[in-house]
Amino acid sequence: MSNWQEVDTYVKHWIKEAGERIRQSFQTQLNIETKSNRNDLVTNVDQETEQFFIERIRKTYPEHRILGEEGFGDDLKDMKGIIWIIDPIDGTMNFVHQQRNFAISIGIYHDGEGLLGYIYDVVHDELYHAQKGQGAFMNETKLPELKEVDVRDSIIGVNALWVTDNKKIDREFLGPLVRDVRGTRSYGSAAMEMAYVASGRIDGYMTMRLAPWDFAAGKIIIEEVGGVVTSLDGRELNMLEKSSVFSCKPGLHGKILETYLKDVKFKK
Amino acid sequence: MSNWQEVDTYVKHWIKEAGERIRQSFQTQLNIETKSNRNDLVTNVDQETEQFFIERIRKTYPEHRILGEEGFGDDLKDMKGIIWIIDPIDGTMNFVHQQRNFAISIGIYHDGEGLLGYIYDVVHDELYHAQKGQGAFMNETKLPELKEVDVRDSIIGVNALWVTDNKKIDREFLGPLVRDVRGTRSYGSAAMEMAYVASGRIDGYMTMRLAPWDFAAGKIIIEEVGGVVTSLDGRELNMLEKSSVFSCKPGLHGKILETYLKDVKFKK
Repeated sequence: MSNWQEVDTYVKHWIKEAGERIRQSFQTQLNIETKSNRNDLVTNVDQETEQFFIERIRKTYPEHRILGEEGFGDDLKDMKGIIWIIDPIDGTMNFVHQQRNFAISIGIYHDGEGLLGYIYDVVHDELYHAQKGQGAFMNETKLPELKEVDVRDSIIGVNALWVTDNKKIDREFLGPLVRDVRGTRSYGSAAMEMAYVASGRIDGYMTMRLAPWDFAAGKIIIEEVGGVVTSLDGRELNMLEKSSVFSCKPGLHGKILETYLKDVKFKK
Repeated sequence: MSNWQEVDTYVKHWIKEAGERIRQSFQTQLNIETKSNRNDLVTNVDQETEQFFIERIRKTYPEHRILGEEGFGDDLKDMKGIIWIIDPIDGTMNFVHQQRNFAISIGIYHDGEGLLGYIYDVVHDELYHAQKGQGAFMNETKLPELKEVDVRDSIIGVNALWVTDNKKIDREFLGPLVRDVRGTRSYGSAAMEMAYVASGRIDGYMTMRLAPWDFAAGKIIIEEVGGVVTSLDGRELNMLEKSSVFSCKPGLHGKILETYLKDVKFKK
């Protein structure tokens, strides 16, 4: 077994160092490539940050495996052993356009169970973190247990795209929810929006297609304050597959599933 | 004629003082009332902040008139003379839920012409400000002129509500735009989103129904960096009336109007 306290100390140290490098990169020019489609930007900073983490993990914990967005990690077929799931910059579009509203996201799993989660809002120097069974924190401040809330009093993170014609879901499914809630928001970083759910700034967050590195850390942190994280149709998330994500306060999660998402179907 | 430099000095001083009071209020309990409908919250901090400004303006500039969201100002029938248009807390829902992503907004108009604009992101201590003809700034940093951008490379602030069934606009109008742009965002504060347009963090922002105190300052600041602010159907904004708002980078404003909004109609 690993010494989880030691791992936690290393991760926090590395995340802060990576964050400092990213803040410094704002003063130099960014190179931007587009990945598979035009909405999927990748910068030299993304790639360098992933390599930064991988080098340190390989050196310190050579037996751990790594799943990373930029593809410098391992090719995983199962969740055996200790696996680091890393998104070096979640919200690359925000990173490029805004130089804010992006995060480093790291989730550490042991035989499939989420043990350590970190989401670092680099610009605001806010590190959301959790160890399973020991509560969740924003920097040194313990995050309170999430409380139940009514649908009509809730603020939900959902992008306008999912209520127009799109490739993932019939636009009719989420319209009634968008109308019934107190308000909707969209920040453009899944990790940040999951950190916002964990800290109660929004009451829920849903989106249609994320990769494990987008939600691996958020799931651990949200569950640690009593929230619920599933796919949009209520199934458990698989860390080896892309998925829709629905993360939410307790109670509200079930109410929304039952009232608005019971018959939800995804497009092929 | 007023000494605008003196007015500018006073406003900045008062805004910083009001911001400090608001940050302190986070340690005390908020009272929350709902205004005309459940989405329109009002807090004691809103009201106290408006009164804070009104007292100082009345004492220093007794001949100026005031239009304020909370109703402690004057009942205006025209734009003659010098008018302060104030939103003490723009984004009250964010203020209540998040304790961030809200702003103090103040626009000062002379015979209907916007001369001084201020949007203060209280939590991040970022003051966006402009004097007509002298450029716009974020704190001490001059904001660059906005550059043209293609629709497909742009990030637009638009809430999911406007592409579902709603009371203001047929949901079909904005769907094609939402699909064609690189991405959409929604932050829940019109003033903040207009400050984001002015600073290039988003390329445009549109919404269906705002009051003058929501856009009075943003219009001045955005125009000072070459952006365009109109109603959603391209008409000039009237500071005595509620309106839809479409604020955008130059060039992109015309392209979007022509391609997506040519036949836009509002619901009665």
